[in-house]
Amino acid sequence: MTEEKLAPPRGTRDFAPSEKLARDELVARLIKIFERYGFNPLETPAFENWSVLSAKNAGGEEILKEAYKLVDQGGRELGLRYDLTVPLCRFVASNPRLALPFKRYQIEKVWRDGPVSSQRWREFLQCDADIVGAASMIADAECLALANDFFTELGMPFLIKINNRKFLNGVLEAVGVELEKRVGALLSVDKLEKIGREKVVEELEKERGLNKNAARKLLEVLNSLSGLNAKEFFEKAGKILSGESGEGSEGLKELRELVRFLDEFGVSEKNFALDASLARGLTYYTGSVFEVVLIGSRVTASVAGGGRYDDLIKAFLGGTRSIPAVGISFGVDRILEALQAAGKTLGRKTVTSVFVIPVGEKTLKPALNTLRLLQSNGINCDVDLMQRGISKNLEYAGKQGVRFAVIIGEREVLEGVLTLRDLESGKEEKLFASEAVKRLKQTLKMDGD
Amino acid sequence: MTEEKLAPPRGTRDFAPSEKLARDELVARLIKIFERYGFNPLETPAFENWSVLSAKNAGGEEILKEAYKLVDQGGRELGLRYDLTVPLCRFVASNPRLALPFKRYQIEKVWRDGPVSSQRWREFLQCDADIVGAASMIADAECLALANDFFTELGMPFLIKINNRKFLNGVLEAVGVELEKRVGALLSVDKLEKIGREKVVEELEKERGLNKNAARKLLEVLNSLSGLNAKEFFEKAGKILSGESGEGSEGLKELRELVRFLDEFGVSEKNFALDASLARGLTYYTGSVFEVVLIGSRVTASVAGGGRYDDLIKAFLGGTRSIPAVGISFGVDRILEALQAAGKTLGRKTVTSVFVIPVGEKTLKPALNTLRLLQSNGINCDVDLMQRGISKNLEYAGKQGVRFAVIIGEREVLEGVLTLRDLESGKEEKLFASEAVKRLKQTLKMDGD
Repeated sequence: MTEEKLAPPRGTRDFAPSEKLARDELVARLIKIFERYGFNPLETPAFENWSVLSAKNAGGEEILKEAYKLVDQGGRELGLRYDLTVPLCRFVASNPRLALPFKRYQIEKVWRDGPVSSQRWREFLQCDADIVGAASMIADAECLALANDFFTELGMPFLIKINNRKFLNGVLEAVGVELEKRVGALLSVDKLEKIGREKVVEELEKERGLNKNAARKLLEVLNSLSGLNAKEFFEKAGKILSGESGEGSEGLKELRELVRFLDEFGVSEKNFALDASLARGLTYYTGSVFEVVLIGSRVTASVAGGGRYDDLIKAFLGGTRSIPAVGISFGVDRILEALQAAGKTLGRKTVTSVFVIPVGEKTLKPALNTLRLLQSNGINCDVDLMQRGISKNLEYAGKQGVRFAVIIGEREVLEGVLTLRDLESGKEEKLFASEAVKRLKQTLKMDGD
Repeated sequence: MTEEKLAPPRGTRDFAPSEKLARDELVARLIKIFERYGFNPLETPAFENWSVLSAKNAGGEEILKEAYKLVDQGGRELGLRYDLTVPLCRFVASNPRLALPFKRYQIEKVWRDGPVSSQRWREFLQCDADIVGAASMIADAECLALANDFFTELGMPFLIKINNRKFLNGVLEAVGVELEKRVGALLSVDKLEKIGREKVVEELEKERGLNKNAARKLLEVLNSLSGLNAKEFFEKAGKILSGESGEGSEGLKELRELVRFLDEFGVSEKNFALDASLARGLTYYTGSVFEVVLIGSRVTASVAGGGRYDDLIKAFLGGTRSIPAVGISFGVDRILEALQAAGKTLGRKTVTSVFVIPVGEKTLKPALNTLRLLQSNGINCDVDLMQRGISKNLEYAGKQGVRFAVIIGEREVLEGVLTLRDLESGKEEKLFASEAVKRLKQTLKMDGD
């Protein structure tokens, strides 16, 4: 088979052990924080019925173009999920007796058949925490408090950008954008940072059908709201909305409440900012939208993002019942890339602490006895499976990043001892097995602390 | 949307929090054992190039019929993986500088678009541990020692069934089955337990092209080897093979070595049995094959299985280099079903230990302060997001399985205390926050032990 065919499919990656251990460590930290706030885990299938992925109010047309389609042998149309929010809403809609609020986290892969770049993959891991059933901004604030904890503990400087779709709709109304053009306009506005002001104006006019005046005025207004502290923002925003029909004012009120709850959750003012040009690329958001960016990082794309989607579950319920929801999603790949760029390493190089080497005749059984003794004391052990000599085994163990070797030769067996070698210092000692256990537990525990 | 459309796609399932927590607990136990033996984690994409899944010596025609196909926007033919072995081999083949032996575990979903039953799903989790690069039977024995540890610690009576494809080929030769019919014959023999002797004979004749005499003789020979201890098995098997060309004898030698290594690994004789009719349903096995079944369980299908596949990586390398490999795969779904059937529960009902309830005016901030204090002491907390009354909150928390409630009313705020309520006993106490932390840490730690 050619090399190209042996590579993972375009836009996907293999994660070798040392990379996977770093990913697992990051995910473990996320889980710790999710559970700290009382979110419980949920799992849903990798693919959904196509009718679910393409439901009204779901991801929308743009993302549906990037969904992988498949058909099962029964002729059912299916698609790989492009996010974890739509499956959550489908789950909630299909479990009418679920106690609310339902707080769940979900850590699974999603797939998007779009353009590939160093920060965009076709398969990537999403780590989501969502609160279903709570309309109050305290729920939005909890999602952000959780993000605040996570990035603070990670030690990466960050900023949480916050906006509100209702407020944005009010702004759009105030500058004269017709109702039916507003969702499209929001998706274009969201690209401001990526493609720049001029291209957004062009897209607003040509693709979204805004007149030149409204498009220019919109960007002017958004610009006038940038770089303000919360107090200034709320003052100026109130004036901009004067005369609009009420949705914008409701959004502004929600933003005020959210900021108040963030204070009560102890989130420092310097960790978040109101950003009127933030819209998020998905159609399902109805209120709060937020994104976390890392400050001074090579990774410029957002590393977490989310918002409120109060109409999505209703759509699955055929409009019979409205269930509000809000959530946040963390991008493991980008966070790991940022950590790497900052020279920080996560996780171990190998899970193995001790490599056991039997040398000579009839040493396998005592060596395996020692292996079992160490294992039963919680020490992860590897053993020579190749009948290689000591030096080859030591070289292999060292290359893997294993800290200790235990050598059991004929002499050791006769004397009832073992040789413990520290592969970092090169120091060797003959010890009784029980002494070795003690020594190893002490050293490995110290390393772990 | 109709109820049917809201259900997960046919053959797949949602796992609600309490089910997911049980799954996570079982997976954590497997990871602990994998790492105990020095296996490191690997992750590969959910889909592979179709040419990989359909490679020579890979899963084979029967399984390929059940693989989900998809095509990306670049027109590439892809397929969802049907196992984790083929991706492992692709990974090894594409990383020529990997140090051997390469011991990896991988815990990910696989998909098979086949018939659905209570023990067969279209999406299921595989938990695999494999050793690449070690030809010695000590590697096969390590896989089984690991399984022996796992099921022993799980407390479920089990039996490891062991056989060898080379030995089986020798038996097939001895009863007069032509070389080119042997793989097919093996796949039929593997169904003995499932469809019974008569149907296997029929399949051997009609589908696999054996003559009646060979088919009958084959089953007679296999039957004569059943129910024997290792010593009896090796004696009788040697006689059956007399006159065959050597592959069978090599297989028998491997079986003898494997049994010896199992003894050295301390695996009790009563935990395994040689089973001449075990073949395994996949074509890629070349030597040892094994399966674990639970004794006296409602789950009759195997809960773990694997074997040696020395030719699979070679196929990906275009036949240029041979790399031996052996592995074992654990079926989480079936193990969980068996645990449930045995009335054993795994995992917590909820991750949350304390539900914080602010009552009255201006209690939110002190309540959230308490929440943060508890969280910083490693106690998972949920908080009222609905502004409900005490009794509704207590009802909700109790239903979720939360053990404690912390109530912060106006009086508590004035007195600088909190009310701690044990939802199991109904006992309430007014405590300083620091006292509550101490009390909670003690009680929750006791529960965890």
